[in-house]
Amino acid sequence: MALLSPSRRVRRTPFSDGVEAAGVKAYTVYNRMLLPTVFESVEADYHHLKRHVQVWDVACERQVELRGPDSARLAQMLTPRDLRGMLPGRCAYMPIVDETGGMLNDPVLVKLAEDRWWVSIADSDLMLWIKGIANGYRLDVLVDEPNVSPLAVQGPKAEDLVARVFGEAVRSVKFFRFGLFPFEGRDLVVARSGYSKQGGFEIYVEGSDIAMPLWDALMAAGEDLGVRAGCPNLIERIESGLLSYGNDMTDDNTPHECGLGRFCDTQTAIGCIGRDALLRVAKEGPVKQVRAIAIEGDRVPGCDRPWSIVAGGQRVGQVTSAAWSPDHGTNVAIGMVRMTHWDPGTRIEVETADGMRSAVVQPGFWA
Amino acid sequence: MALLSPSRRVRRTPFSDGVEAAGVKAYTVYNRMLLPTVFESVEADYHHLKRHVQVWDVACERQVELRGPDSARLAQMLTPRDLRGMLPGRCAYMPIVDETGGMLNDPVLVKLAEDRWWVSIADSDLMLWIKGIANGYRLDVLVDEPNVSPLAVQGPKAEDLVARVFGEAVRSVKFFRFGLFPFEGRDLVVARSGYSKQGGFEIYVEGSDIAMPLWDALMAAGEDLGVRAGCPNLIERIESGLLSYGNDMTDDNTPHECGLGRFCDTQTAIGCIGRDALLRVAKEGPVKQVRAIAIEGDRVPGCDRPWSIVAGGQRVGQVTSAAWSPDHGTNVAIGMVRMTHWDPGTRIEVETADGMRSAVVQPGFWA
Repeated sequence: MALLSPSRRVRRTPFSDGVEAAGVKAYTVYNRMLLPTVFESVEADYHHLKRHVQVWDVACERQVELRGPDSARLAQMLTPRDLRGMLPGRCAYMPIVDETGGMLNDPVLVKLAEDRWWVSIADSDLMLWIKGIANGYRLDVLVDEPNVSPLAVQGPKAEDLVARVFGEAVRSVKFFRFGLFPFEGRDLVVARSGYSKQGGFEIYVEGSDIAMPLWDALMAAGEDLGVRAGCPNLIERIESGLLSYGNDMTDDNTPHECGLGRFCDTQTAIGCIGRDALLRVAKEGPVKQVRAIAIEGDRVPGCDRPWSIVAGGQRVGQVTSAAWSPDHGTNVAIGMVRMTHWDPGTRIEVETADGMRSAVVQPGFWA
Repeated sequence: MALLSPSRRVRRTPFSDGVEAAGVKAYTVYNRMLLPTVFESVEADYHHLKRHVQVWDVACERQVELRGPDSARLAQMLTPRDLRGMLPGRCAYMPIVDETGGMLNDPVLVKLAEDRWWVSIADSDLMLWIKGIANGYRLDVLVDEPNVSPLAVQGPKAEDLVARVFGEAVRSVKFFRFGLFPFEGRDLVVARSGYSKQGGFEIYVEGSDIAMPLWDALMAAGEDLGVRAGCPNLIERIESGLLSYGNDMTDDNTPHECGLGRFCDTQTAIGCIGRDALLRVAKEGPVKQVRAIAIEGDRVPGCDRPWSIVAGGQRVGQVTSAAWSPDHGTNVAIGMVRMTHWDPGTRIEVETADGMRSAVVQPGFWA
């Protein structure tokens, strides 16, 4: 692995002191902010995440706040998902598309009130798009980045740990809903969500001053649960089919290509900027789509660029994320495959950095 | 330094193979792309840059192309710099501001033709802002990221090297102008510009296929000039007063605070989205501004977060870039200082990661 030079531009988070004290071994840069990627090792972190509970510094999931009378209209302009039925207290995963239907981001939308929303973004400066649209359409709305840093608690023992710190009532929060729970005299948004399939919560920490106190409180309360500092885990997220914007999809892709067609209410999402383009896609269907792929043989190297998928001498797609899965005894991967070769069981070849490998399109992800 | 995990999301460039073969030691991530930061050492690279010639992979300076009948109007909407007199074949450094006058980026604008422009961006997804504005104002313009990867040739021997590869005519290209010069049968934009004060060129390489051939041609042609792979150098750019977006300025700052008032033709830049906000700033002047600062004592540690500037027990600014300068025998730094303490010769204190240091506001940068 290469070294990462320090600079202010690659921002630290309010939890960085805790992350360093916990012995972080590597980072990536996400929304120009440090995101840990390894503590003990990717595999050791994976086993621990699936059995115990981890606290993740995901402050890099920056929030874009929409506030004001036109905020609901603006939110609907961004996405083909129909937001009309969404109530305050709910979260919604939403594809964000440009006028061509290309994916600009895939955030979680948090509806705080009828006229106040947080867009919890993946890795692109989505605020610039939202501000540009708000300005161009002269909407009566305020768009900015509040000082909110999410902290995730993930793993099978996450509910027990979060209940110890925020109280038993947190157990009744349903999936993709949130409640307000007090910590050191401040009410924090605590949502049942997170970038793993192991269960857990995301706490939207407002203000940097209570960030390390909350980190320390979770670590202290979870000692007997085996709590550790952790981070989104490459192996677990591939097994679980959690796509990563910038890795598995870019602005070249429509939501339908990303398997996100179920979040596109193209008929009823009136006002969505990409609706015209997506109406056509929704009708015809995509010609390539995301698939789970098992790559045979030994452990694959790190996937730091698209690996071509080949069949019958033709390029029929690309793999964009891959890792060895100890629990499944195979290399698990995410790729985009042309419709001629996307049926489960189709044998393909993947051009990894170590050479060609046999691979098989899977019926679904592993979790 | 921490390790950087590989992933497709942190994009390689068409020159990455050359950079790796040259023994790159560290990177930063810039526009979600790899940007080398160290080859031999930051100091050895600095001495070499000031004496010889280096080839820099600055593919991370992504281009945003504006094309179509409304492209000139759109360009002017982005910046308070008056672009009316700009001719094709010219480059212009331009602050980009939002409706509040906050800096969104500080790119170089390249005017290819009356209806075709490249915006060569610093580290933010400026394309999203430009696309949002173009969409909201229903402009008749195409906005996208072409497959163009800049390669810089910098240092006192840069002109000799570039002339060997592109021909003697390149010597007549003036500062911040460009010409079209052939390489392997393709005409490339070659501009006299670059992120150092040592002189040199930036070659806008269209298409990835000729990237490594050009890299290799420059290395071969410059052997007796002592050419090496290099990268923007922290020490040299601070000495030269070259600001870095995300380090020395953010969207919190106006161009006037960044010392970029001379690029703001606020009276005549009609159509600029931030004009109303900046008219007020231009009239009153900023209350804090970028300054060169000499920090006394031994070598300072890496500046990975803003360091407070203190005087008389009060916070009067912050340092955002700092490095030991071998040629000047002091720590050179860039900071934003309140008007009460921004006069040359003012003694201040800087709260570095290693503790408080005495420092002095300078009359100007070192180069």
